[in-house]
Amino acid sequence: MSVTAPDGFVAAGVDVGIKGPGRLDLAVVVAEDGAVPAAGVFTQNRAAAAPVVLSRRRLAAGRARAILLNSGCANAATGERGWKAAEATTGAVAAALGCPPTEVLAMSTGPIGSYLDVDAIAARVPELVGQATKEGGSTAAEAILTTDSRTKTVVVNGPNFILGGMAKGAAMLRPDMATMLAVLTTDASVEAPTLQRVLTEAAAVTFNSLNVDGCESTNDSLVLLASGRVGSVSESELGESVVKACSALAAEMAADAEGASKTVRILVTGAAEDLLARQVGRAISDSALVRASFYGADPNWGRILAAVGTCPVDVNQVSISYQSVSVFRSGSPVAHVELEGLLDSDFVVQVDLGPGQGRAEIITTDLTPEYVRFNGERS
Amino acid sequence: MSVTAPDGFVAAGVDVGIKGPGRLDLAVVVAEDGAVPAAGVFTQNRAAAAPVVLSRRRLAAGRARAILLNSGCANAATGERGWKAAEATTGAVAAALGCPPTEVLAMSTGPIGSYLDVDAIAARVPELVGQATKEGGSTAAEAILTTDSRTKTVVVNGPNFILGGMAKGAAMLRPDMATMLAVLTTDASVEAPTLQRVLTEAAAVTFNSLNVDGCESTNDSLVLLASGRVGSVSESELGESVVKACSALAAEMAADAEGASKTVRILVTGAAEDLLARQVGRAISDSALVRASFYGADPNWGRILAAVGTCPVDVNQVSISYQSVSVFRSGSPVAHVELEGLLDSDFVVQVDLGPGQGRAEIITTDLTPEYVRFNGERS
Repeated sequence: MSVTAPDGFVAAGVDVGIKGPGRLDLAVVVAEDGAVPAAGVFTQNRAAAAPVVLSRRRLAAGRARAILLNSGCANAATGERGWKAAEATTGAVAAALGCPPTEVLAMSTGPIGSYLDVDAIAARVPELVGQATKEGGSTAAEAILTTDSRTKTVVVNGPNFILGGMAKGAAMLRPDMATMLAVLTTDASVEAPTLQRVLTEAAAVTFNSLNVDGCESTNDSLVLLASGRVGSVSESELGESVVKACSALAAEMAADAEGASKTVRILVTGAAEDLLARQVGRAISDSALVRASFYGADPNWGRILAAVGTCPVDVNQVSISYQSVSVFRSGSPVAHVELEGLLDSDFVVQVDLGPGQGRAEIITTDLTPEYVRFNGERS
Repeated sequence: MSVTAPDGFVAAGVDVGIKGPGRLDLAVVVAEDGAVPAAGVFTQNRAAAAPVVLSRRRLAAGRARAILLNSGCANAATGERGWKAAEATTGAVAAALGCPPTEVLAMSTGPIGSYLDVDAIAARVPELVGQATKEGGSTAAEAILTTDSRTKTVVVNGPNFILGGMAKGAAMLRPDMATMLAVLTTDASVEAPTLQRVLTEAAAVTFNSLNVDGCESTNDSLVLLASGRVGSVSESELGESVVKACSALAAEMAADAEGASKTVRILVTGAAEDLLARQVGRAISDSALVRASFYGADPNWGRILAAVGTCPVDVNQVSISYQSVSVFRSGSPVAHVELEGLLDSDFVVQVDLGPGQGRAEIITTDLTPEYVRFNGERS
């Protein structure tokens, strides 16, 4: 089901041969009633891939009819030829649907620097669009996978609307592999500005709180479409559902991180403002030394403190706990701490910065020898 | 020789038992003629250790008589008690030398969060100071090592002066271990402001260009003392020698990085200004994905581009080469590149950003499974 759970959407996935024979690699999600309100959040990377640039530009209109997605090729760092490929493949979808090309978005994931096989894709698009059905959500979810070990889908039931979603992203990335992609759909009736506001806020506290290796991809894309098949809904209820859906998809990505052996939640509290709390959480989860200590189940709070100290904080007010066991309090070590076994599986690190109200939560994973081996392999 | 090579300095190293029996762990460097012009560069970390805070404060006067150094304990994150330990141990040196305590600096390296054994150190200081000789440079260099596999010393002969130095730092840090420490000495006659200017500039292009795991330590310290035994010298000649000495010590640290299998020089050119070039070099060397690809000898320029893209650059002007072999030129991949064997040992990555004159060079190492295992061990 996933993206086809809400009324007004159909989807499909086929095998075009981009990833090699027998693996689905091209998908489409279509709004049945024509162009609908749409919103997007994309990577901030200046090396953003052609599909990101194209989708961002087309979404300025606040409406979209369909999204064409492929795995096996990121269409990133491909210059003018890559741009033309994004235009041509989405153009094929527009032709099959009989809509303006500007109503079709694109998402790609896979190795950077290789070119899309435009002819192969364009030739299969009519069949792909023709196959799009209510049952096609799961094949679409499968067609966007790269190193993921399983599909990632979600359905959230709101009070009077449904929200569906699919995503790919195994967080620890295969050589050259770019990215997390996610598509959300709802049958709620919402105008584009509201949709954008809700999506931006949800991304900030979910996907943007996932920091597995500090590497910002060229292709990260998140799009939300609203068919309007059911009546209008409360913005706060919709927002809550979007956060819930994004949280679920982000958690699945962390859990599916290749080469990671555990998920660690870093909770930062007591900051002067949320932004500082986020900066601190990010500094901790960016530290290779900290993440190696997570792997070794080593309660090495000195490394956490050193990471915290790269941010504008007063170290004499800092306290650090593992799983609620305090190891460092207001600038000094806590004596005689027993942490045996506490860090052997998923755990929480809490860092309190002082008396402020600002807080943030970052989800990360441990850095393992497997991660390095996996990502050190030649593509 | 090292720090005792220039006229006017003596040094010694002894075993106080901080690192366990039989290993030198306490050292002193003394200016024979009393307090001399001195300059320092220290970590920017807000969790700076007590010895860093003390030395920085005392160096405001621009003069120092001696430096007390220890390994086996960073005296970091130790609160008021750590501060008193730094004061008491440097006070013991001052008493032995008959100088004001404010003329004695401190440097510590080792695990964060453990306390210095003040009594043990103070009891041995008179003997340590008494042993300080012209021949003591090498024992001092040995006493500051932690996970280093060998001592790191340098002597540079200027036209009419000598510059000596010692350092510790194996870049890949042992659990909890903090730091690079370095002491430079010269017999040149230089006033403190000039000394500070020369040292700051040299640090920027040497130690601060070494980025092995993006982790800024609580204890990083670099101090330069000038005895003035020979006449005055040209600032540019002194600066050149200081850069040479710092370069040599930084290169030894990179080569001694535990868990690293190769050193990679990242040369960024064509930036609008040096600062941007440095930011790009840092982004590349901060990326775990990039450094894992270095380990695997994988010419994965897509990851380099993604790291470059996190900085404010125009990707369409970016070119990337490995060992002068171009793989990405002005925004597009170069076809049919042969790189076989080129990345198997130390190599250079060149990233050109456009027509600017700004440039920077960053030295880094590969990220290896050994690094993670080494740093994942419990302390």
